[in-house]
Amino acid sequence: MSILVVGSVAFDSIETPHGKRERCLGGAATHFALAASFFTDVRVIAVVGDDFTAEHEAVLTRRGIDTRGIEHLPGKSFHWSGSYLKSLNDAETLNTELNVFETFQPKIPDAYADSQFLFLANIDPVLQANIRSQMRGVKMAFGDTMNYWIDDHRENLLKVLRGLDGLLINDGEAKLLAGETNLVRAAKAIHALGPKTLIIKHGEYGATAFFAENVFGADRTHPFRAPALPLETVVDPTGAGDSFAGGFFGYIASQGEMTPAVVKRAMFYGGVMGSFAVESFGTERVQALTRDEIDARFAVFEELSRLE
Amino acid sequence: MSILVVGSVAFDSIETPHGKRERCLGGAATHFALAASFFTDVRVIAVVGDDFTAEHEAVLTRRGIDTRGIEHLPGKSFHWSGSYLKSLNDAETLNTELNVFETFQPKIPDAYADSQFLFLANIDPVLQANIRSQMRGVKMAFGDTMNYWIDDHRENLLKVLRGLDGLLINDGEAKLLAGETNLVRAAKAIHALGPKTLIIKHGEYGATAFFAENVFGADRTHPFRAPALPLETVVDPTGAGDSFAGGFFGYIASQGEMTPAVVKRAMFYGGVMGSFAVESFGTERVQALTRDEIDARFAVFEELSRLE
Repeated sequence: MSILVVGSVAFDSIETPHGKRERCLGGAATHFALAASFFTDVRVIAVVGDDFTAEHEAVLTRRGIDTRGIEHLPGKSFHWSGSYLKSLNDAETLNTELNVFETFQPKIPDAYADSQFLFLANIDPVLQANIRSQMRGVKMAFGDTMNYWIDDHRENLLKVLRGLDGLLINDGEAKLLAGETNLVRAAKAIHALGPKTLIIKHGEYGATAFFAENVFGADRTHPFRAPALPLETVVDPTGAGDSFAGGFFGYIASQGEMTPAVVKRAMFYGGVMGSFAVESFGTERVQALTRDEIDARFAVFEELSRLE
Repeated sequence: MSILVVGSVAFDSIETPHGKRERCLGGAATHFALAASFFTDVRVIAVVGDDFTAEHEAVLTRRGIDTRGIEHLPGKSFHWSGSYLKSLNDAETLNTELNVFETFQPKIPDAYADSQFLFLANIDPVLQANIRSQMRGVKMAFGDTMNYWIDDHRENLLKVLRGLDGLLINDGEAKLLAGETNLVRAAKAIHALGPKTLIIKHGEYGATAFFAENVFGADRTHPFRAPALPLETVVDPTGAGDSFAGGFFGYIASQGEMTPAVVKRAMFYGGVMGSFAVESFGTERVQALTRDEIDARFAVFEELSRLE
């Protein structure tokens, strides 16, 4: 089933211990869509400027991604500059230019109206709420957010959360959102805000899914933990979380519904796509990926975590 | 098969968000021995003072632990005071009184000479090396250490590592020991120092086992990740790592040898014992535990991490 994703399509200037890239294709919706495209049909809502060329668009369309919802405006695309020289675990933002995103009023093409899965990638919760209200009929809506929106736009974010079936965030974001240092209690607090499925990402340690009682029934509320692959070399962490989300939600959409077995495999696929994303700068690795490589790495994840 | 463990048998004064305990029974060898005693025969080498009563010793002997190697000296037992009020992940040491440990010259009772598994719990590497050299014939020797010995007693510690088959330490200790921020590269560097099996503990995120080529063969060097149980309440983290080590090494000793299947289950048992240890102050929870409770929680760990 089709996923509609809304989020940034952007250019990133990135500095890591492995080198530098100026204005490579990035953005949460880009990384999400590329990862999800290996599992299901993906449609993108975003806004770009004159600097987004046919060649950039082809990176998406070559993977079968529907880009009719990417609006082209005069001006420059969103541009983020960041450095991982101090730590590969935390990006230091050097500069953020919203550019055409500043006045973005998302419109949903008619061709997208029948999308059954909705993913609200990390953008202003006002835009997330706007899209959510235009897509009331979806079967399942998941989203992402970050510290900035949790801290400074909490009221707007809380409105979005009430309309989400699931949320994918990291440890620090979960604790900040819940005002709670224990992850189990943080998960309960976040369930109460709306998302009954909560995926907390632990970076190099994997991810945990927490389920409220009404997801799979009161007798199936225990969490699930998926591993991350220990990697000897991380070239560029940018987009790892969005690629995780794309693999995770792409697999769920491909199965049409979320059973315990589906969500567990989805978390493995999330980890698989995140592990590829960090192997090269920007979208380089994921755009060159094959389904065979994905399946082979899925087997490595199983080997990594399965009792014999 | 029997494990001989050398380490501290001590009293701990502990402060956590859940309360305070003065001088409760603790020490690395105590926590290790109690956890391992559910899997195999355990013999302890340690030194205690006059304050270590028959009642304290009975906590160990009731679990079938052989305490003939615990030497009684005039004076006071090792006493550690710590606080977890700032963070449940990091103990703040308020005071350390070595007392009788200061002049400890470990002697191995004849009855211990046939021990086939040796665990060098976290103590001065000079004592670890002393015991190791007296127990050359063991089938397998594992050990533990901490930042203090890595930083200030590195040369002594390196001598111990050369004689170890395996080492159990946490992320920060592994990075400090290897001088390397990437865990995969840190593991390779530590293999080169001696321990061909390295268990890196990630606290609430579980643990990873790294194997050098000569452990299970060059085609079986991929790591294994075991989950930790997400806990809503952590009463006292003291001894969690030692209890993990006891469950881990106790299970391996019970099986007599370390196959890939055994070491994976051993990591699950380590996680299980660590998860019980933190539920009450000191040794309270583990000394009251039953094998049925251990088996039930092992099943929870499987559920937590197994694809269906």
